[in-house]
Amino acid sequence: MTKNAIYAQSGGVTAVINASAAGVMQGCRDFPHQIGTLYAAENGILGVLHENLIDVSIESDETIAGLKTTPSGAFGSCRYKLKSLDENRKEYERLIEVFSAYDVGYFFYNGGNDSADTCLKVARIADEMGYPIKAIHIPKTIDNDLAVTDNCPGFGSVAKYVATSIREAGYDLESMHKTSTKVFILEVMGRNAGWIAAACGVASEEQNEPPHIILFPEIIFDEDAFIRKVKYAVDNYGYCVIAVSEGIKDRYGMELSASQHTLDDFGHHQLGGVAPIIAQIIKKRLGYKYHWAVADYLQRSARHIASKVDVEQAYAVGYEGVRLAVSGAHAVMPAIRRISQNPYQWDIQAVDLAKVANYEKFMPRNFISEDGFHISDACREYIVPLITGEDYPKFENGLPKYIRLKKHFVAKRLPPFSK
Amino acid sequence: MTKNAIYAQSGGVTAVINASAAGVMQGCRDFPHQIGTLYAAENGILGVLHENLIDVSIESDETIAGLKTTPSGAFGSCRYKLKSLDENRKEYERLIEVFSAYDVGYFFYNGGNDSADTCLKVARIADEMGYPIKAIHIPKTIDNDLAVTDNCPGFGSVAKYVATSIREAGYDLESMHKTSTKVFILEVMGRNAGWIAAACGVASEEQNEPPHIILFPEIIFDEDAFIRKVKYAVDNYGYCVIAVSEGIKDRYGMELSASQHTLDDFGHHQLGGVAPIIAQIIKKRLGYKYHWAVADYLQRSARHIASKVDVEQAYAVGYEGVRLAVSGAHAVMPAIRRISQNPYQWDIQAVDLAKVANYEKFMPRNFISEDGFHISDACREYIVPLITGEDYPKFENGLPKYIRLKKHFVAKRLPPFSK
Repeated sequence: MTKNAIYAQSGGVTAVINASAAGVMQGCRDFPHQIGTLYAAENGILGVLHENLIDVSIESDETIAGLKTTPSGAFGSCRYKLKSLDENRKEYERLIEVFSAYDVGYFFYNGGNDSADTCLKVARIADEMGYPIKAIHIPKTIDNDLAVTDNCPGFGSVAKYVATSIREAGYDLESMHKTSTKVFILEVMGRNAGWIAAACGVASEEQNEPPHIILFPEIIFDEDAFIRKVKYAVDNYGYCVIAVSEGIKDRYGMELSASQHTLDDFGHHQLGGVAPIIAQIIKKRLGYKYHWAVADYLQRSARHIASKVDVEQAYAVGYEGVRLAVSGAHAVMPAIRRISQNPYQWDIQAVDLAKVANYEKFMPRNFISEDGFHISDACREYIVPLITGEDYPKFENGLPKYIRLKKHFVAKRLPPFSK
Repeated sequence: MTKNAIYAQSGGVTAVINASAAGVMQGCRDFPHQIGTLYAAENGILGVLHENLIDVSIESDETIAGLKTTPSGAFGSCRYKLKSLDENRKEYERLIEVFSAYDVGYFFYNGGNDSADTCLKVARIADEMGYPIKAIHIPKTIDNDLAVTDNCPGFGSVAKYVATSIREAGYDLESMHKTSTKVFILEVMGRNAGWIAAACGVASEEQNEPPHIILFPEIIFDEDAFIRKVKYAVDNYGYCVIAVSEGIKDRYGMELSASQHTLDDFGHHQLGGVAPIIAQIIKKRLGYKYHWAVADYLQRSARHIASKVDVEQAYAVGYEGVRLAVSGAHAVMPAIRRISQNPYQWDIQAVDLAKVANYEKFMPRNFISEDGFHISDACREYIVPLITGEDYPKFENGLPKYIRLKKHFVAKRLPPFSK
C-alpha cells in the first residue's frame, strides 16, 4: 500500500545535507509502490507543525543533481527541539494529525543530536497513539559527534576545508614570518567535541609543518604549557600556526570565550571569538606579532571544496534511509560503518535510534597526542579517508552555481496550529 | 653578452605570486643568450642586502609547474621599505655591490606599491652610479590598488575566494534565519581601497541575494543609514549578509576597528576585527542574532579556489617582465591592459615605474552604488572577468599538494652587511 512521506532538515546546516535530500528524493522515486508523494517540510519540524509542506515529487532530475552540489539546507532548517511529551503533548498530537491529514507513512528527519532526539520522540508518540509510521533519522552534523556511526555526513567536508585553509595560511605565514607576523590562529567550530580542530592537524605531515598546535575542547587549556609550545615553535620553525576550537575551556570548565579575557561588551557565546583571546595571551606573554581568522559559517558551507567521500556518504544515508523505511525499519538511523582502513571501505548499517539520541561522541583520548596539543597517528588515519576526493560544483561567471528551489507549497488541510 | 639575474618577492603574499616566479624562471630559461644564472633572493630585498641568494637555475621543470599552483611566496617575502637615498645611502650602495659581485644585469622585484617604490629607487641609484642593470617591477597585490595596470595579479583569486565564500555563507544564513541567526558579517582585507569588499558584491546577482550590504573604506561609515539598510534586508528578505572592509572609517577618518567601539585591551590595528564591532552595533540597535567571520590570511592564500585568469596573468607578468628586460626595458612594470570586455581580452604593456610607485588606486565612485552600500553594474563588469575560470591544484591525501623549495643557497662572496 502506498503511503506518502515527509522529509525535513534540522539544526546547523552543512555543505552536503542537500546531498542527503537528493538521496531521499531519489530513493522515494525508486520505490513508487511503497511511497507516493514526498513532501519536504519547510524549516524542519516547524514545517510539519505548521503544515508548511513543499511537494518535491514534481522537482526535476536536474534539481536533484543540483542539490547534490548546493550547500546549506534548501528547504530551510530550524533550531527547535520538541519538549518532552509531558511538557507539550499538544505538539506531538499535532504532528500525528498532520501525518494523518497527508496520509504520511514515512518520516525522514535529517539532522544531528537534537534531531535524533526529535525523531525518536516522534516514533514513540506514533507508536503510543497507534499511528503507523516509519520514522528514520538521517545523520548530519559537521561536529561529527553522533554516537555509533563511524562518522557523520558533513564532517568530511568541513574537515577538508579547515585542513586546506590552515595549510594555505601556514604557507602564507612561512613566507612572511622573517619580518612580520610570527603567529597565526584559526578558530574553528566545535563547542564540546574537537573533531573539526583535529581535522586541521591532518595538514601537518611533518613535525615542522603547520599547524604546530591544536587546542581541543576535550583538553583543559593550560596557558603556561601552551605558551611554551608557541615559543618552541617560533624558536625552532620561525613561526607558529595554531588551530583553536571555539569551545576550549579553562580548568574551571569555563569557556575561554566567556572568561576574564573576554571584553565586557562582547560576551555573546554564539559569537566564537576565542581566536582574538588566544592572540592577546600570546601578545602579552611573548610579544609576537599575530594574525587570526574566524572561519565561522564559511567552514560549514564551503561546498566548493567538499570531500567526495562526504558527498557520497551524505547521499547514501539519504537513499538508504528510504530503503530501510520501505523494508520496514522504524526508529533507526542509517549509520556509516568503516569496513576497512586501507583501502578505505564503508557501508551503511541501521542502528537503533535510542542508541544515538542524546549521546555525544567526543574525541577519544588516544586521538590526541600525549601532550594534548596535536593529533595522534590514529586520528590522522581516521580522518584522511573522510576528506578524500574532490567533487567540485559547476561554476558560472566565476562563481559556484548553486540552486534555489521553487518550493511548491501544497494547500493546507488543517486549521492553524497554536501551542 | 650574458648577465645574471635576481628575482625577489616582497610584501603581503598572494595565492598566485609564485606563478609570477614561475613566469620569471621560465622566461630566464627561454633567453639563455641574455640571461645566465637566475638567483632568487630570500625574503625580498633583504636577501639581496644580506646576500642570501638561491640558485633557481637548477630547479626542475616540475618545480616551475609546482610553483604555478602553490600559494604564498616560495622564496620568502619581507615587509621592508628602503629609506630614502639621503637617509641610508649605504643600503643602496650595498645592493649595487651585490649586483656587481654576482654579475647581475637584471633585477625583477615582485610586489605592490612599496616594492614598486623600492624597484624604482634601485633603478635610479644604479643609473646614478653608472651600474648597468635592467630593473623591472612585477606587479602583485591582492589589494588591486596599483596605478595604471587594469588590475593586479593576486586580486582575481582573492576576489573569487571572497565572492564564493560570502555566497556560500549566504546560503547557510538563508537556511537558518527563520529560527536562528539573522545577520552574517564577513570581514575582508582592504585598508584603504575597497576592491576586495567590492568583489563580494559579485555574488549577489539579484537584489535579494547576499551580500545585501557592502561597507567600503572609500565611503564614510554612516551608522544610521547602515542600520536602516540592515533592517530593510531583514524585513524584506528575512536576513542580512554584510561584507565589510577592514579599513572602514567614521566621519572623523578614524578606522572603526580603532574607534570607541573597540574593546580596550584589543586595539591592534594589524588585527582586523571590525566584524565584531559591526555585529555589536547591530545587536545594540536592532537586537538581531548574528554570526561573523574574519577571513584574514585564508583569503589571500586560498590557492585551492584561484582564478584561472589570475593565474595566467600572474605567470604572464613574470614572463613578460623578463622579455621586456632582455629587450632593453628599464624601470618599468609589465601592466595588464583590458583590450575588450566581452569577450574579455587582455595584453601586457610596459609602463614607466615612476607612474606606478607611490600611487594608490581606490575604487572609482561610479563603481559604488549611489547609496554607497553596494557595487554598481560597471564594477561587476570590471570584476567578473578577473575571477573567471578555475585552476585547481593537485590533491593528495585529501589536501592540496603544494611544494616547498629545497633552496640551494650559493656561497657568499662579500663580507656581511651591517647598516
